[in-house]
Amino acid sequence: MGTHNDPSIPKPPPPTPEEQRRLDELYAKFEASHMVPLWTEIGDLMPQVPKPAAIPYTWRWQDLLPLAEDAGELVPVGRGGERRAIALANPGLGGRPYISPTLWCAIQYLGPKEVAPEHRHSQNAFRFVVEGEGVWTVVNGDPVRMSRGDFLLTPGWNFHGHYNESDAPMAWIDGLDIPFVHYTDTSFFEFGIDRVTDESTPEISRSERLWCNPGLRPLSGLQDTVNSPIGAYRWEHTDRALTEQLALEDEGHPATVEQGHAAVRYVNPTTGGDVMPTIRAEFHRLREGSQTAKTRKVGSEVFQVFEGRGRFIIDDEVHEVETGDIVVSPSWAATEIQAESALDLFAFNDRPIMEKLHFSRTHTEGELQ
Amino acid sequence: MGTHNDPSIPKPPPPTPEEQRRLDELYAKFEASHMVPLWTEIGDLMPQVPKPAAIPYTWRWQDLLPLAEDAGELVPVGRGGERRAIALANPGLGGRPYISPTLWCAIQYLGPKEVAPEHRHSQNAFRFVVEGEGVWTVVNGDPVRMSRGDFLLTPGWNFHGHYNESDAPMAWIDGLDIPFVHYTDTSFFEFGIDRVTDESTPEISRSERLWCNPGLRPLSGLQDTVNSPIGAYRWEHTDRALTEQLALEDEGHPATVEQGHAAVRYVNPTTGGDVMPTIRAEFHRLREGSQTAKTRKVGSEVFQVFEGRGRFIIDDEVHEVETGDIVVSPSWAATEIQAESALDLFAFNDRPIMEKLHFSRTHTEGELQ
Amino acid sequence: MGTHNDPSIPKPPPPTPEEQRRLDELYAKFEASHMVPLWTEIGDLMPQVPKPAAIPYTWRWQDLLPLAEDAGELVPVGRGGERRAIALANPGLGGRPYISPTLWCAIQYLGPKEVAPEHRHSQNAFRFVVEGEGVWTVVNGDPVRMSRGDFLLTPGWNFHGHYNESDAPMAWIDGLDIPFVHYTDTSFFEFGIDRVTDESTPEISRSERLWCNPGLRPLSGLQDTVNSPIGAYRWEHTDRALTEQLALEDEGHPATVEQGHAAVRYVNPTTGGDVMPTIRAEFHRLREGSQTAKTRKVGSEVFQVFEGRGRFIIDDEVHEVETGDIVVSPSWAATEIQAESALDLFAFNDRPIMEKLHFSRTHTEGELQ
Amino acid sequence: MGTHNDPSIPKPPPPTPEEQRRLDELYAKFEASHMVPLWTEIGDLMPQVPKPAAIPYTWRWQDLLPLAEDAGELVPVGRGGERRAIALANPGLGGRPYISPTLWCAIQYLGPKEVAPEHRHSQNAFRFVVEGEGVWTVVNGDPVRMSRGDFLLTPGWNFHGHYNESDAPMAWIDGLDIPFVHYTDTSFFEFGIDRVTDESTPEISRSERLWCNPGLRPLSGLQDTVNSPIGAYRWEHTDRALTEQLALEDEGHPATVEQGHAAVRYVNPTTGGDVMPTIRAEFHRLREGSQTAKTRKVGSEVFQVFEGRGRFIIDDEVHEVETGDIVVSPSWAATEIQAESALDLFAFNDRPIMEKLHFSRTHTEGELQ
Repeated sequence: MGTHNDPSIPKPPPPTPEEQRRLDELYAKFEASHMVPLWTEIGDLMPQVPKPAAIPYTWRWQDLLPLAEDAGELVPVGRGGERRAIALANPGLGGRPYISPTLWCAIQYLGPKEVAPEHRHSQNAFRFVVEGEGVWTVVNGDPVRMSRGDFLLTPGWNFHGHYNESDAPMAWIDGLDIPFVHYTDTSFFEFGIDRVTDESTPEISRSERLWCNPGLRPLSGLQDTVNSPIGAYRWEHTDRALTEQLALEDEGHPATVEQGHAAVRYVNPTTGGDVMPTIRAEFHRLREGSQTAKTRKVGSEVFQVFEGRGRFIIDDEVHEVETGDIVVSPSWAATEIQAESALDLFAFNDRPIMEKLHFSRTHTEGELQ
Repeated sequence: MGTHNDPSIPKPPPPTPEEQRRLDELYAKFEASHMVPLWTEIGDLMPQVPKPAAIPYTWRWQDLLPLAEDAGELVPVGRGGERRAIALANPGLGGRPYISPTLWCAIQYLGPKEVAPEHRHSQNAFRFVVEGEGVWTVVNGDPVRMSRGDFLLTPGWNFHGHYNESDAPMAWIDGLDIPFVHYTDTSFFEFGIDRVTDESTPEISRSERLWCNPGLRPLSGLQDTVNSPIGAYRWEHTDRALTEQLALEDEGHPATVEQGHAAVRYVNPTTGGDVMPTIRAEFHRLREGSQTAKTRKVGSEVFQVFEGRGRFIIDDEVHEVETGDIVVSPSWAATEIQAESALDLFAFNDRPIMEKLHFSRTHTEGELQ
Repeated sequence: MGTHNDPSIPKPPPPTPEEQRRLDELYAKFEASHMVPLWTEIGDLMPQVPKPAAIPYTWRWQDLLPLAEDAGELVPVGRGGERRAIALANPGLGGRPYISPTLWCAIQYLGPKEVAPEHRHSQNAFRFVVEGEGVWTVVNGDPVRMSRGDFLLTPGWNFHGHYNESDAPMAWIDGLDIPFVHYTDTSFFEFGIDRVTDESTPEISRSERLWCNPGLRPLSGLQDTVNSPIGAYRWEHTDRALTEQLALEDEGHPATVEQGHAAVRYVNPTTGGDVMPTIRAEFHRLREGSQTAKTRKVGSEVFQVFEGRGRFIIDDEVHEVETGDIVVSPSWAATEIQAESALDLFAFNDRPIMEKLHFSRTHTEGELQ
Repeated sequence: MGTHNDPSIPKPPPPTPEEQRRLDELYAKFEASHMVPLWTEIGDLMPQVPKPAAIPYTWRWQDLLPLAEDAGELVPVGRGGERRAIALANPGLGGRPYISPTLWCAIQYLGPKEVAPEHRHSQNAFRFVVEGEGVWTVVNGDPVRMSRGDFLLTPGWNFHGHYNESDAPMAWIDGLDIPFVHYTDTSFFEFGIDRVTDESTPEISRSERLWCNPGLRPLSGLQDTVNSPIGAYRWEHTDRALTEQLALEDEGHPATVEQGHAAVRYVNPTTGGDVMPTIRAEFHRLREGSQTAKTRKVGSEVFQVFEGRGRFIIDDEVHEVETGDIVVSPSWAATEIQAESALDLFAFNDRPIMEKLHFSRTHTEGELQ
């Protein structure tokens, strides 16, 4: 609570007792009239740079997975609760199941032969698989295999359910814009059938057969779509793209985003833009011993280590990470990544919101603005 | 807190005491690990239609103005507090100075010869004048006269201050996206000079001289801008536009938005789109005795009666209004306006956010979806 | 005909008689097979900079108007011939009625009480009035008064006819994309009624009443349109916009496009872009004694002097001009305008084509590229 | 030449001899003043539907290839003539080397070890390979292998040369917008080095390594580009995309553009739009015995049979075709394709021009407009 307490601003003289009494009276009337003065709030309300309540934080995969397994034993999955998903709750956000004010990140767990029933909602969702296989997610009737390294989409208002056809459990992470949707009062939700509409288990989905031919667009799909029509972005393609970028760098050609740092963004092939309106997803590969420039960006970002060891230095605090660990970097936190071994990172953030609403800013240490 | 309590969903059997003990243990571990299960939260978190905490509410101009006048006596305006603005706090939002989760609406008051010092911020702002005159707002060095019926812009990151050159006080309303910016951690703020950079008092601003020639664009301004370059949208133009729409309706031509309801949107002339990335502003005129269709829309909207008497029926609750009164309609609230007399309404909302992020939905009673 | 005859390219040795005989044979076979070798044509076909067949040229209003008057006496206006319009034929284009390869410019003449019947076509059209009044052009049923200084639109596929309600004849210029449409085989044409659908003579059109309120967009017109919905851009607005730009320049503010040179573009208020997809229209005002930078641009441009005396220097040739005179500057011709008196110029060009297809280039003498 | 000779339009009475004398005088004055009346030209100039001078026509690969081989013997390739390319000249276009008013199509031939030197031009170009291999085209320094079924880009103002590293000759087709660029006076041309900048022969180009990973965009390439950054669209991807569409059709899913007709468009991955601003390219596969709907479209299109036998019925004339044959369909010609065997077709057209300038229209027989 407070004014802009810039030391260069001269303080006005304190009020006299009579003034204070009248002020107290005025403030009481404000409250009774559902009014709040700006001048007592402006410092907190409109800080000079973003002052997130969310904090930088790291969850260990070795902590998350056993708890998900316990839930697998104790909590049924089915209609009503809908999903056996456990959200990562940013310690700065008062126990809300939000990894940042805009983003949701959860570990989801499905036992052998279990089904998570179909539903749809205005919230945009994806899954990323750090280990395991055996589950198909069925998106608008199209069964999509989930395997290690795959990035899978269930954009807003698409019916979807999950089906574990194997005899082993499987866990993965879900990313959604639940906090943003909740805050902005934009949630719609509808139940579908109690199992999934198609329990077949094809190697690749129909969406991939139509849309994953590089540079080629089906004539039956000439209308641009808000969300990517691709159901699964396969690890083999991601891995090859990153390998090629580093090879091109070795050959002396521009290809990486900075020295030793290859990266791709998952995109909607109908527009070349982000896969969904509120969430951007990327994959980064750092060579052993390399590091990223220390950068502040408006908007929050979540990383999951896919493979390797390294550290995040966020606002000067060190977070050591290894495979499966999940790190959140809040808005405007100075963030730097160091790769102890070769380091593969999945990342997602809310920057499409920031860009569309023109709140984006970036500051990289050592660069002129 | 809760699952989706649809009565059609069969309840699972209650846990045995042993199961409950293990569950309690699991939930304690979740909490210790900063994790929150979805299945106990989903009903609140992902409702079937938006369930805003914000409520429909009306503030009376006859209550607001005297309190602003009292503040004028007791509270200085100047550096630190920056503005003598008192926000309308939606009773559903726990005392936060927010008229809705995304929007800020305040009454601002400036005494004779007072100056509100220059600053700039990432928050987008406008002013609307329901009565009075005598203040110039100086936006990036361009002094803009404020008079009854005018709509004035100070978009994000433009320096601005206000200067009352008259011997009478003046009050007006401010609209901003402060709550949205605060929630999304996108606030930047910078002080400018302690007075205003230009204390001249021209009849019209330079921005109007360049940009308010209908259908004409200066060749020196061919680059599209995110925000409208127009500093003031004058009442005489708004009034004439509405008058012509109703006259055209009388002559049998399509012009109004529905029978007896003329309306204009304030737009950025470089794009034809909204004046700022997060806020839409419009002016509506209803003929005496007419009424709008009962409509639900995603996103929140604020109205100020500019002239006349009528009523808002929001989620079946009646709000009688007259000149100066301010009404908020939260997301998805069924809203209908009835004009007892001819009714002129200024309105602003957050729908550019909803449209850019593809969360928009509208339901008009009696129409098929 | 020819190769790229760069003197730096070594000539191959001339063919032997036997080689020549075989070459002749080959070229005869090419012709018989409807084939043409590139190597004999490339110099003409793909020049190093544009080499237009069209030439810079000036038509005098004092020559055009009497011939239009003669036509008024001798040639009826009506169905079949459709319009009493006489096109300006660029002397470089072999007698085709084209002022440039893409643009048509004609003087149109309508006697007292005459009617040019309604039709519509895919060609985009406008009128500009250098003198006179008394005619209404009826565009999709909306009668639009034509007066000195007005710029009037009849975009592609809008029904339109003209009606002279006065007892005096009237002449004006028409601008269209007829040559471009003819070349690209995109012409559609349809007859309407033999008179005009509405013979009333309102001071301003319905389109202006709806759309000429600066910065305001009717809620009944939120769908963007390819063509401007404004039927007439009035002289009073154009004149005021230019006057203000020069006044702002005098006051020390950025407003003009270069020193002493005010200019506006006519735009579509739904997008801020050009009024029609193929034609850009602008109005320029030069102070007495000022001159424009010498500039080459891709695409052709036509100017009509609205008021004043000056000269065009196009590819080093001087064209003295006065009120009513029409000048064409072909693609990439170095063009400079000097104002002997204060000089008001209407201008139109094909640059929306060049910009949308990414063929635009500009070179201004003395600027680095 | 002529008015709109609609039989329903009553002819005016013929002029008297005196009137005719005065008319002749007037028309002579028009000619002397470089003016042309609309009323004698309108029928030809503004037809009711497009009346192309270009005609439907077919060139046989078995005719083209031997002539290209002859040229290979007799005509050197090198600086000045630049390319050993022989254009297909539409018989309706008076011997101009244009397959349609907007498009160029040539057969290009390069002998063993020959080099076509580097240059660049504003004209947009592609190559399509119906047979053969052994040539690399070097685009801005990136060597791109050319093989059967590949579609290769050299967009406007990119340096490019060709290098045959094999001991066999190779022929392919070039497609460009030379006629459009020539007509609109937008040609720029610049010489590069006399050989190619990189004579290495990699299996895939750097552009493919960066850009041909489906759904993935390099972070080093986030700026959208006017032209596709992909140098080669490989046959294996095209073939697989078409195979999948037909397989999906067999499985009962929407995927083909009409029954038995699979098709893809080559696109720019940064936008999802056409590969270059003026040229659209597609590949079509028809099942044996299938046929397309009879359709008229604005704009001209060229097809090359890649594999199979069939017939084009264009404005009721039958064109029997087989592998390598090239067919042109002018604007608004009613076009139908019948597949005698399974039929693979490469196609390119000028419809991006038509769409961007809003001249597009399509009429499919039997469908309501």
